[in-house]
Amino acid sequence: MSMLPHKVVTFGELMLRLDPLGHDRFVQAETFEARYTGAEANVAVALSGWGVETFAVSKVPAHEIGQACVNYLRRYGVNTDYIVRGGDRLGILYVETGASQRPSNVIYDRNHSSIREIRSEELDWDRIFEGKHWFHVAGTAPALGANVRSVVEEALASARRLGLKTSFDCNYRSKLWGLEEARNVLTRLMEYVDVFIGGAEDAEKIFGIALHEKGDDRFRTEYAAKQLCARFGFEWVGMSLRGGDSASKNRYAAMVCYGDECFFSREYEIQIVDRVGSGDAFTAGLIHQILRGAGPAEAVEFAVAAGCLKHTIPGDFNLVSVEEVERVIGGEHSGRVQR
Amino acid sequence: MSMLPHKVVTFGELMLRLDPLGHDRFVQAETFEARYTGAEANVAVALSGWGVETFAVSKVPAHEIGQACVNYLRRYGVNTDYIVRGGDRLGILYVETGASQRPSNVIYDRNHSSIREIRSEELDWDRIFEGKHWFHVAGTAPALGANVRSVVEEALASARRLGLKTSFDCNYRSKLWGLEEARNVLTRLMEYVDVFIGGAEDAEKIFGIALHEKGDDRFRTEYAAKQLCARFGFEWVGMSLRGGDSASKNRYAAMVCYGDECFFSREYEIQIVDRVGSGDAFTAGLIHQILRGAGPAEAVEFAVAAGCLKHTIPGDFNLVSVEEVERVIGGEHSGRVQR
Amino acid sequence: MSMLPHKVVTFGELMLRLDPLGHDRFVQAETFEARYTGAEANVAVALSGWGVETFAVSKVPAHEIGQACVNYLRRYGVNTDYIVRGGDRLGILYVETGASQRPSNVIYDRNHSSIREIRSEELDWDRIFEGKHWFHVAGTAPALGANVRSVVEEALASARRLGLKTSFDCNYRSKLWGLEEARNVLTRLMEYVDVFIGGAEDAEKIFGIALHEKGDDRFRTEYAAKQLCARFGFEWVGMSLRGGDSASKNRYAAMVCYGDECFFSREYEIQIVDRVGSGDAFTAGLIHQILRGAGPAEAVEFAVAAGCLKHTIPGDFNLVSVEEVERVIGGEHSGRVQR
Amino acid sequence: MSMLPHKVVTFGELMLRLDPLGHDRFVQAETFEARYTGAEANVAVALSGWGVETFAVSKVPAHEIGQACVNYLRRYGVNTDYIVRGGDRLGILYVETGASQRPSNVIYDRNHSSIREIRSEELDWDRIFEGKHWFHVAGTAPALGANVRSVVEEALASARRLGLKTSFDCNYRSKLWGLEEARNVLTRLMEYVDVFIGGAEDAEKIFGIALHEKGDDRFRTEYAAKQLCARFGFEWVGMSLRGGDSASKNRYAAMVCYGDECFFSREYEIQIVDRVGSGDAFTAGLIHQILRGAGPAEAVEFAVAAGCLKHTIPGDFNLVSVEEVERVIGGEHSGRVQR
Amino acid sequence: MSMLPHKVVTFGELMLRLDPLGHDRFVQAETFEARYTGAEANVAVALSGWGVETFAVSKVPAHEIGQACVNYLRRYGVNTDYIVRGGDRLGILYVETGASQRPSNVIYDRNHSSIREIRSEELDWDRIFEGKHWFHVAGTAPALGANVRSVVEEALASARRLGLKTSFDCNYRSKLWGLEEARNVLTRLMEYVDVFIGGAEDAEKIFGIALHEKGDDRFRTEYAAKQLCARFGFEWVGMSLRGGDSASKNRYAAMVCYGDECFFSREYEIQIVDRVGSGDAFTAGLIHQILRGAGPAEAVEFAVAAGCLKHTIPGDFNLVSVEEVERVIGGEHSGRVQR
Amino acid sequence: MSMLPHKVVTFGELMLRLDPLGHDRFVQAETFEARYTGAEANVAVALSGWGVETFAVSKVPAHEIGQACVNYLRRYGVNTDYIVRGGDRLGILYVETGASQRPSNVIYDRNHSSIREIRSEELDWDRIFEGKHWFHVAGTAPALGANVRSVVEEALASARRLGLKTSFDCNYRSKLWGLEEARNVLTRLMEYVDVFIGGAEDAEKIFGIALHEKGDDRFRTEYAAKQLCARFGFEWVGMSLRGGDSASKNRYAAMVCYGDECFFSREYEIQIVDRVGSGDAFTAGLIHQILRGAGPAEAVEFAVAAGCLKHTIPGDFNLVSVEEVERVIGGEHSGRVQR
Repeated sequence: MSMLPHKVVTFGELMLRLDPLGHDRFVQAETFEARYTGAEANVAVALSGWGVETFAVSKVPAHEIGQACVNYLRRYGVNTDYIVRGGDRLGILYVETGASQRPSNVIYDRNHSSIREIRSEELDWDRIFEGKHWFHVAGTAPALGANVRSVVEEALASARRLGLKTSFDCNYRSKLWGLEEARNVLTRLMEYVDVFIGGAEDAEKIFGIALHEKGDDRFRTEYAAKQLCARFGFEWVGMSLRGGDSASKNRYAAMVCYGDECFFSREYEIQIVDRVGSGDAFTAGLIHQILRGAGPAEAVEFAVAAGCLKHTIPGDFNLVSVEEVERVIGGEHSGRVQR
Repeated sequence: MSMLPHKVVTFGELMLRLDPLGHDRFVQAETFEARYTGAEANVAVALSGWGVETFAVSKVPAHEIGQACVNYLRRYGVNTDYIVRGGDRLGILYVETGASQRPSNVIYDRNHSSIREIRSEELDWDRIFEGKHWFHVAGTAPALGANVRSVVEEALASARRLGLKTSFDCNYRSKLWGLEEARNVLTRLMEYVDVFIGGAEDAEKIFGIALHEKGDDRFRTEYAAKQLCARFGFEWVGMSLRGGDSASKNRYAAMVCYGDECFFSREYEIQIVDRVGSGDAFTAGLIHQILRGAGPAEAVEFAVAAGCLKHTIPGDFNLVSVEEVERVIGGEHSGRVQR
Repeated sequence: MSMLPHKVVTFGELMLRLDPLGHDRFVQAETFEARYTGAEANVAVALSGWGVETFAVSKVPAHEIGQACVNYLRRYGVNTDYIVRGGDRLGILYVETGASQRPSNVIYDRNHSSIREIRSEELDWDRIFEGKHWFHVAGTAPALGANVRSVVEEALASARRLGLKTSFDCNYRSKLWGLEEARNVLTRLMEYVDVFIGGAEDAEKIFGIALHEKGDDRFRTEYAAKQLCARFGFEWVGMSLRGGDSASKNRYAAMVCYGDECFFSREYEIQIVDRVGSGDAFTAGLIHQILRGAGPAEAVEFAVAAGCLKHTIPGDFNLVSVEEVERVIGGEHSGRVQR
Repeated sequence: MSMLPHKVVTFGELMLRLDPLGHDRFVQAETFEARYTGAEANVAVALSGWGVETFAVSKVPAHEIGQACVNYLRRYGVNTDYIVRGGDRLGILYVETGASQRPSNVIYDRNHSSIREIRSEELDWDRIFEGKHWFHVAGTAPALGANVRSVVEEALASARRLGLKTSFDCNYRSKLWGLEEARNVLTRLMEYVDVFIGGAEDAEKIFGIALHEKGDDRFRTEYAAKQLCARFGFEWVGMSLRGGDSASKNRYAAMVCYGDECFFSREYEIQIVDRVGSGDAFTAGLIHQILRGAGPAEAVEFAVAAGCLKHTIPGDFNLVSVEEVERVIGGEHSGRVQR
Repeated sequence: MSMLPHKVVTFGELMLRLDPLGHDRFVQAETFEARYTGAEANVAVALSGWGVETFAVSKVPAHEIGQACVNYLRRYGVNTDYIVRGGDRLGILYVETGASQRPSNVIYDRNHSSIREIRSEELDWDRIFEGKHWFHVAGTAPALGANVRSVVEEALASARRLGLKTSFDCNYRSKLWGLEEARNVLTRLMEYVDVFIGGAEDAEKIFGIALHEKGDDRFRTEYAAKQLCARFGFEWVGMSLRGGDSASKNRYAAMVCYGDECFFSREYEIQIVDRVGSGDAFTAGLIHQILRGAGPAEAVEFAVAAGCLKHTIPGDFNLVSVEEVERVIGGEHSGRVQR
Repeated sequence: MSMLPHKVVTFGELMLRLDPLGHDRFVQAETFEARYTGAEANVAVALSGWGVETFAVSKVPAHEIGQACVNYLRRYGVNTDYIVRGGDRLGILYVETGASQRPSNVIYDRNHSSIREIRSEELDWDRIFEGKHWFHVAGTAPALGANVRSVVEEALASARRLGLKTSFDCNYRSKLWGLEEARNVLTRLMEYVDVFIGGAEDAEKIFGIALHEKGDDRFRTEYAAKQLCARFGFEWVGMSLRGGDSASKNRYAAMVCYGDECFFSREYEIQIVDRVGSGDAFTAGLIHQILRGAGPAEAVEFAVAAGCLKHTIPGDFNLVSVEEVERVIGGEHSGRVQR
């Protein structure tokens, strides 16, 4: 295992993900596969598998389903000591896996979850951040209402004050909040962010970044990233680019900018096993590369190869090794059996 | 199939029941068996299997998990035309199956469910009850808050006004509401009830019925039932009696009173497959017998044999035929293969 | 749900479909997935999901496997009140799912089934058709012997007499009957048919329609359809067009003619989950469009998009919503997760 | 493995057995466990596991389900070279596993099976029996119609003529044929039988053996056996005795007579996993003991211990070793883990 | 969770346990349930669930199966930082679950495992034991050959030197080593042991403790324990007592001595789900009680109730809470559903 | 079934193959699918399905897992009479199924297996080869150490002496032995080989065959084959050619030379279900064609179509019929359902 001497903290909601078996539709399901997930925890799990010490901060109910969620993170090496217990329920995500022309479908049952009732005094960020190097949170967290929002702001401000690097995955979800509210909240939060991950489309909708009218996708993506940097002073920006025509396969590439230097990765054609969590895998790949001091050209290839591999793994966690990511970068993806 | 020319309406919450496989504990579960349930709907399913036309009234979310719940009832012949769609979520019941000295364990995640937001104007009881003969509801319904409570009261009052017979399964659950509140609400509702199902213990706690200090269990049970009849004017009272020493096996019997006539059933020793829903199976058995004009002696044997068989079936539904119940009454429970 | 105020009746055999898990071959199977199916019932299920009231008419044995079959239809909203109980057995279809160069394989074990012994007096078509608008049957029904054949003829004649629109899916299966017999029977039945679904190849083999010697596939398909209309006076003809090179993916398109107007749909490239039932899904799509008053250009796109989606769903039932079909027509099949 | 230098031939129907999972009822099943079985083949499998060379004779369809059935026997060491291929279908046995007061339930779908169309010329008994020592058949075979009946008679007569020992398990099933027909056929066949297995009840119903009016079960069983010997000249008679009160547990014992010497085994109280096939396990145990020259006292203990162990194994096959049977006889059934 | 401020270290082999599903025999298995286990790790998992900080020390291969084993412990809260990676393989335990008269069966495939090649310099006991309070090891560890044996002796000696309390579960397995060798090795190790767990039978076979010729089981057990204390100076001795007649149910009790004070627990009749690991559950219960300062009377009831509950849980881990154990002690084992 | 009057013997290791479900990674697996396999036994199974009498020679442990392995071969018609019982363990192969850019991964746990301790006197090749026509072994066998190596040499020499045709699949695995050792051993063994299967790359690495520097893949493959023939006097050489870019799909073709005549097959694009065992399927196809007297042009098409079909079947066995292979050769691979 390639070890990095860094400690990364994440904050966000943890949920139970329930999937019908195989390609069954919800109305056919007599069984659900049960996995636990969370945008930020997914990042922690991937980093943990790469030798980074990670700490997931959240709030889950005190009952056994909450404990099962905690155990699920511990299993993959994430430290769960800062997870608060209490509140009413663990949010649920019903996920139906699509195929071909039928997209995957997600039903949210995550209102009234424990984390939404979190109170500032339940988390002592000074203690949590002591000796840590990085803090990561996604845009789905401040979307969870006033309580979570103020915890996120407090966490980001503390991280900045205590010298941790911060990353933010924009991840706008219209089912969680409106554009107006998102714009107000996120614009304020961006001042604490060093590394921004998000799409050009979100940049336009939320931050009012004007998309360039001409040029191809790559040109417009780069243009948007540079405007974001200019406006918010981001050190790094990562954007993934997805194309394709079905729920079974996709084209997948990305761009990473470090200041003014923007690099595009190679593009992969992917046969999809489970697409959910690939954005978090990309984010983890980018964080890993920045931690180990890579430049943007190297970082974008690692992050996109990590995201690419995630598509082949059931569930939200990117359970791959650094060596596996590097083999993909090195061009070994011929499918030859490893024996 | 033995057909009865009656139409029975039930009202109550519908929920998703999630079980780990076999005897796995919650923290071991990577898969949940998914079934839909509800105290009153369980009664409807059993009656439907016995040739009674049944109508389940409830409210479920408009999404596919709500639809799957509706489908689950339709599959077993229950009419779902009066189920209202809307609201936020379907309540969830996590059920872990115990064994021997380890009891089965239930985690409720049923707050904020669609039915709790039901509004009186969403149900037109005059139309629903038109041409129907019986209305059944359980004590878990009025425990779901003011909205459901007023719908229950309206339903019971309408049923009484329109000449339907009414049954009520007391089913006090301390996790849902306090004794004080239950006492106030239930006492008021009892005036509309013809057939009461519940335990002597509940009678004491909720209605302040004094348990007789002397005598064996049977005597005290009968004494409590007679007081209930005297106080609330119930036509019928059914009470099941359970003894035993493990989650794997139980002794099971019951008493049914019709006015002053009280009869006790034979007692069964049961090897338990799934105990959940056995109370609803007993209730369905009692309703079935009253519908077909049986006396209390006959009714109690049918109801308890129905409840007994439920213990052998996974899930909450009592999927047995009248003939199977009658074979048990007739003493054919030697385990000889039916071929 | 988009509701249509129509009532559709189908008649045909119901069977138990047994599949080895995943891509296992029959000789590897230690477990079978059990689903119930029938060409015409598949159409009813799809229509029922689109808000059409449907009634499946058939005959199944009086035992629990017959009941499980009935329940399977009820679950998806099909009215089963007219299903006759009796006879010896439910036919079985063993289905092995192929991949790549290995085609899916079907073993029929459907001789001596209950429906083959159906007697005319068991079905009162005047009563069944009362208040209904459409009758659908497939060519596999009259192939089941003299009893079923005369019921089909009686049903079609009654439908015509009572003013129902009729549809017929040709579906010639050489394992069920010879060409000669099929020609005699089907030619006679065609006089009652308003909407015909079938391939150009069947048209040639069974009805002796001369295929045009020149032109591409599209031209020849249109030429065959027009001859069929001319000869039998069909109001509508639907024909699907399939190309491709493996059991894992296919090209799929269709043509619909309304009188002289013939329209071809767009062509889809499909990653196949389960191809069985896609013809029935297409038929249901066409019926749905005619019921709602669409023209052939609109109808063919809906029907082929419905058929396309069926390929992504395990089992024979096309469990998709009108909205999902319309999203595919609208070009939303990028595989983007719905959340 | 304890080897015996004997070769045993069996003849009878082979079927597909389909079970819902666990204790699910038929109407709940979405999956069936698939196993292949046959009263006589079950005997062959048990003997094969005890080092006896066995040959199952039957007829199965030429398709892959027929082949899967053949493979299932080969897997457990039974020679299948004499199994004829052809005919329409493999019979099916749906088996629902009961519990407590709910008995296991079997639905037969075995009409029109391949073996029912067997023709005498398809089997050359002189060649089959060459070098063999024993022939076994059960009463379910002659119940399958005239074709099978005449093959059975020819086989028994050939076996007698060629010096093989013959055994017959009476096994009357009212679902297969009437008492009158059974009496006529079986009485004629008994003249070729050396070893008879069956219950006192069958002896009375079929052969008109008068049951003794007095005495306990044991006395009456012995009395019946002795009359059978007297009438038909059986060398050995084996009868199992079952008592108990539920589908989950049973008392189980047996009697074996060799001429006038009758011995009763110890009685076991059994927690039942799968009761089907326990009679065949008993028969195999008895044959094994006679082959190795045991006396009736020894034989009855082995046969009943073998039958006892079968109750603990899913499916119809008694997959236990001679050593395991002997450990039970030796009193080692304390449940201590073997490690 | 009841927390204890203690830190417990265990050392021993970790293995992969492979079980056929349900009651299937090995020769029927097409699927194995995969769990990771180890006598001492099982103790750590139970203690971890009761709020004790635990550290499992072992050696596993560097590949993914080794990692999966580590993850399995982390999931249940055990610290795995001291587990050494390397060597050839993870030992395997095939476990077949018996029923009734058929005992469970274990096949060892644990030779040549990574831990057998462990070298003293791979573990720094001074560092490992720093700040810890207890060290536990079982007799299966020194049975693994010279390397493991010298590591065990070094660990016990270091523990004694550094002031940790030590416990030793005798657990003689004849498949691993002979009595002579066990006697020599264990006698030497006993000098470092404070708390001894083992049976009277082992005491006799290994240490030559003379069993009292008279008296009942209880008397003889107490007599053996007292001799062990006298000879080796044990502070505590725990012995479980098992009776019963089947793999499906057992009687279970225990005795704990603190110096001269010996107390017997109540006896439980247990319906068995999975008996493997119940000894480790008892040991964990005893350690927990000693840590929290309980006396022997209290300790024995807790330890035996913990062992009792283990029988109801699939796998080797005793995933129960202190509250659940205390409810059993308090007599709440009526099987009443917890809701 | 197309029958061939030949008898084929294979020798090599048999192993247990354990796969996580679906595309799960090793660290996610809670269940393993269990299958038994071996390079040479895979060839025997394929040939057995094509009507060739086959005999697998190997050594497995005497316990039930060894027996389950034997049963697995018997099930598919392979004679197992010459399999020796004894030794310590059955080797294990953990196989994780890749997808897209993630290759399948194999972990070997096959050291210390029973076959590695085989002794010459345990196999009497004169008796085994009596009446047989062909002997097949793969390069993985002599890689298993001195014991197996000398058995392989003895077997090949005996086969040559007794007039059996011999085939050898080169199959170099660097995890099993070094190039130097392989070169020494294999060079010596090649003198007994008539039919060689292997890649041009292996030919270069092991036998020092100079690859032609120019020309395309086909030219270089043919050039290598001809040199091998010239050097070792092989009668036949078969080489498969694989291209492609993912674990989900591949291009697949082959070349077969008979003396100087080299023929290339058509190329298939394959959607992969399970790639493991496709080399053995190719080898079996080639042997089958040589046995039935086909020329190289015909042989290469059959062998590559057989290998192509193997990719669609879970597990290592190529369970396809001659007719299915021929349908692929005939161009019927459109995925049209066989019904």
